[in-house]
Amino acid sequence: MSKNDFGLIGLAVMGQNLVLNVASRGFNVSVYNRTSETMNGFLSGSAKGKSVEGFEDIEEFVSSLERPRKVMLMVKSTAGNDINDRDAVDKVIEQLVPLLDTGDLIIDGGNSFYIHSERRSKELEAKELLFIGTGVSGGEEGALKGPAIMPGGPQESWEIIRPVFESISAKVDDDPCVTLIGPGGAGHYVKMVHNGIEYGDMQLICEAYNIFKSAGFTADELAQVFSDWNDGDLESYLIQITSKIFAQKDPETGNAIVEMILDRAGQKGTGRWTVMSAAENGVVISTINAAVEARILSSLKEQRVSASSQLSGPSNDSLSGSGIEKSQLVEKVKDALHASKIISYAQGLDLMKRVGNSHGWELDLGAIARIWRGGCIIRARFLNRITEAYERNPELGNLMLDEYFNEILDKSQSGWREIVCLAIRNGIPVPAFSSSLGYYDSFRSENLPANLLQAQRDFFGAHTYERVDKGAGEFFHTDWPDVIED
Amino acid sequence: MSKNDFGLIGLAVMGQNLVLNVASRGFNVSVYNRTSETMNGFLSGSAKGKSVEGFEDIEEFVSSLERPRKVMLMVKSTAGNDINDRDAVDKVIEQLVPLLDTGDLIIDGGNSFYIHSERRSKELEAKELLFIGTGVSGGEEGALKGPAIMPGGPQESWEIIRPVFESISAKVDDDPCVTLIGPGGAGHYVKMVHNGIEYGDMQLICEAYNIFKSAGFTADELAQVFSDWNDGDLESYLIQITSKIFAQKDPETGNAIVEMILDRAGQKGTGRWTVMSAAENGVVISTINAAVEARILSSLKEQRVSASSQLSGPSNDSLSGSGIEKSQLVEKVKDALHASKIISYAQGLDLMKRVGNSHGWELDLGAIARIWRGGCIIRARFLNRITEAYERNPELGNLMLDEYFNEILDKSQSGWREIVCLAIRNGIPVPAFSSSLGYYDSFRSENLPANLLQAQRDFFGAHTYERVDKGAGEFFHTDWPDVIED
Repeated sequence: MSKNDFGLIGLAVMGQNLVLNVASRGFNVSVYNRTSETMNGFLSGSAKGKSVEGFEDIEEFVSSLERPRKVMLMVKSTAGNDINDRDAVDKVIEQLVPLLDTGDLIIDGGNSFYIHSERRSKELEAKELLFIGTGVSGGEEGALKGPAIMPGGPQESWEIIRPVFESISAKVDDDPCVTLIGPGGAGHYVKMVHNGIEYGDMQLICEAYNIFKSAGFTADELAQVFSDWNDGDLESYLIQITSKIFAQKDPETGNAIVEMILDRAGQKGTGRWTVMSAAENGVVISTINAAVEARILSSLKEQRVSASSQLSGPSNDSLSGSGIEKSQLVEKVKDALHASKIISYAQGLDLMKRVGNSHGWELDLGAIARIWRGGCIIRARFLNRITEAYERNPELGNLMLDEYFNEILDKSQSGWREIVCLAIRNGIPVPAFSSSLGYYDSFRSENLPANLLQAQRDFFGAHTYERVDKGAGEFFHTDWPDVIED
Repeated sequence: MSKNDFGLIGLAVMGQNLVLNVASRGFNVSVYNRTSETMNGFLSGSAKGKSVEGFEDIEEFVSSLERPRKVMLMVKSTAGNDINDRDAVDKVIEQLVPLLDTGDLIIDGGNSFYIHSERRSKELEAKELLFIGTGVSGGEEGALKGPAIMPGGPQESWEIIRPVFESISAKVDDDPCVTLIGPGGAGHYVKMVHNGIEYGDMQLICEAYNIFKSAGFTADELAQVFSDWNDGDLESYLIQITSKIFAQKDPETGNAIVEMILDRAGQKGTGRWTVMSAAENGVVISTINAAVEARILSSLKEQRVSASSQLSGPSNDSLSGSGIEKSQLVEKVKDALHASKIISYAQGLDLMKRVGNSHGWELDLGAIARIWRGGCIIRARFLNRITEAYERNPELGNLMLDEYFNEILDKSQSGWREIVCLAIRNGIPVPAFSSSLGYYDSFRSENLPANLLQAQRDFFGAHTYERVDKGAGEFFHTDWPDVIED
């Protein structure tokens, strides 16, 4: 009996769709699931007639595969910050290990926290097995039709799985949206930051919406605004679906569906992890941070409703009577959104660079932007521009400094500042727009007021300071006067 | 031979000063240090003639103590996020354990990360030894003259050390600045958040300074502004020393010393840990966050200098020609500082409450504010107002909602908004002022734009949403239109 090319364990929707995708590219696929009921439903349902073979016994599943075996896990990971946490992914790996032979490859395609991919990679290496931890982005539809794939592992593993991943991934100009990100946890790390950036993109769009809503724009008008934006520099999947969302009516009430949806959002692990990783590594990602914070504040719906009648706002709390022309407002909000988006990506790329360097991953930021152009939620024309920026200068220090982005920031900043001030004067929260602007203004400040902070630290803790007229690394202390207490 | 009342291990400056403080209150103190050279210098120096006895042998040190023995460690902790990290504190504990008897007490007085205090507390309990992890705030001078002390541990441990801690702590109106914070890691957790709040206070003062500097205020004028502020609601140690800092001249150049100090600040573990803990627990502390981020950005001095000539600012990049009267500016900046400070404390208290609840610590926020009134770096009149707020309502949901603070926010918000806009229009970064305002405006928003975010999540990931016209917890999904890709 001939062996199959590819095995997958874990048949939730993402897993099923990946299997259908792989099978549709001419590969024979073996599948296994913890409960055979789900598997049998899949085999007699959407997988019927496809080159998909199911096994109720994991040993038979493994035996059915051509060597080196390629077994992909689409199993929900629950292990967080604690490196010793073991979860369902580890359990399946434990089951597989005695059944596999030297050189076989296990691929974890779930949203595992990258420290566990580092750990699993080492544990399996010691057993002469290969491992890849990979991000798969694009949701259910992406899994089926072509996701962006971010694998992390050794070159040897990559060469084994490359033909499969390159055929199932999304394509942009025939270029597959997959590349080897780096060793160990690099793939899952980059997927995590991708999700953080996705949080940022969504929050920036929401802040634009909030301003438009305050200025009296109808949902139909907003569908048009976002549709127009999608024809220009902001062209992206998220802008496009936002336009469709505003156009969608609620069958029950006839209102725009968006007006019937409750403003309480959830946040999953990856956004939070991105913020924690940035804090741990001393990298500023203030825009993504503001987006995660905004989701948390949105979840406090009851507290907000109650506080809204207790905490006062400015006297002018709506833009609808402000006399600003709608077309002008659209242009300026676009400036704020575009500039803030550049800042958010600059921060996310900086985070990947710094953490990558500290792990010795040698991440290729241009290549990462290139594979994000298709398949994933943040796919956008914008990412072509980032790829070009790194082609112009592979050593680019910060995305803001690239000539193309620098010019947009220069052109947008007047509208950006105006929109943030307009919102602040009118009591409309714009935490991501303003955090982005704060980063821009801090980064381009030759002098920040931290000289006073250093003086304070030296005053109360004798922490010493450097001087402007002496070399860096030379530390001084002032004998400060006593403070008289009451 | 009679035994001593209190033992201390670790004679760096903080340890030495604590010993002198304890000895000055009529207790006999045994000391031990890893290197005897430091100890002997101390014994023949500042401890000479005091009731301080040194031991070169740790066994003799332990034997010299009255039972139940009280041994305080002032040893630098290096263990971070990884619960399995063992550091110098653990090494000393390992040395002590075989020498101690049931019911003896070990106190860790360093800045240990609270998860390790939780762990050590359990490890020692299993050995029938008592443990306290305590924050000690107030720097070197506080340690000597009276710090704020934040002990965490069981009631039994607290009763043993209470007479010593109550006599050495700072006093406000005869009230000692120490109380049992809660069990396990509660003391170190609260000290960590205290430090995060300290970061926030310092950053807010720096942002005020940056605006004044841009408006052409001299250091002498600023010494006066801060001295005046210290006579009012903002009275605090940090405002007071800031006034003294501006008055201090550099002997070498004759300039104000603050102008000769380099604007590059460091950040230590506690600020970063506070941010990570907030992210992990889904609590928003955007002001403290902005303060930590500002320190990181300050440290990128070379990148900033280089970026300052590449990234453009607004055409009007200084306030000095803006025609704003200085006295008016002082009042409005004061509004921005005062309001932002309220937000920062509201967030820090909220973090302690939520994390405390999740650990079952039952923190008394009013009592915590009370012990911060003296000894520590953030001591301020402001903390009396917080104590009063929790006396009025021990179940207070958020500090902003207390009548006193609510009224200040109401009165300050017009100046606060004006200052943030003024800074933004002029390219002056005010990340903490504006993050605070963003929190205020989000928290008092009955409706946030997260309805759009929920629609997006349902569109690309079928995550479902709640509706405004249906009950909470009822989830809906829309069958969204297809997106046509190029």
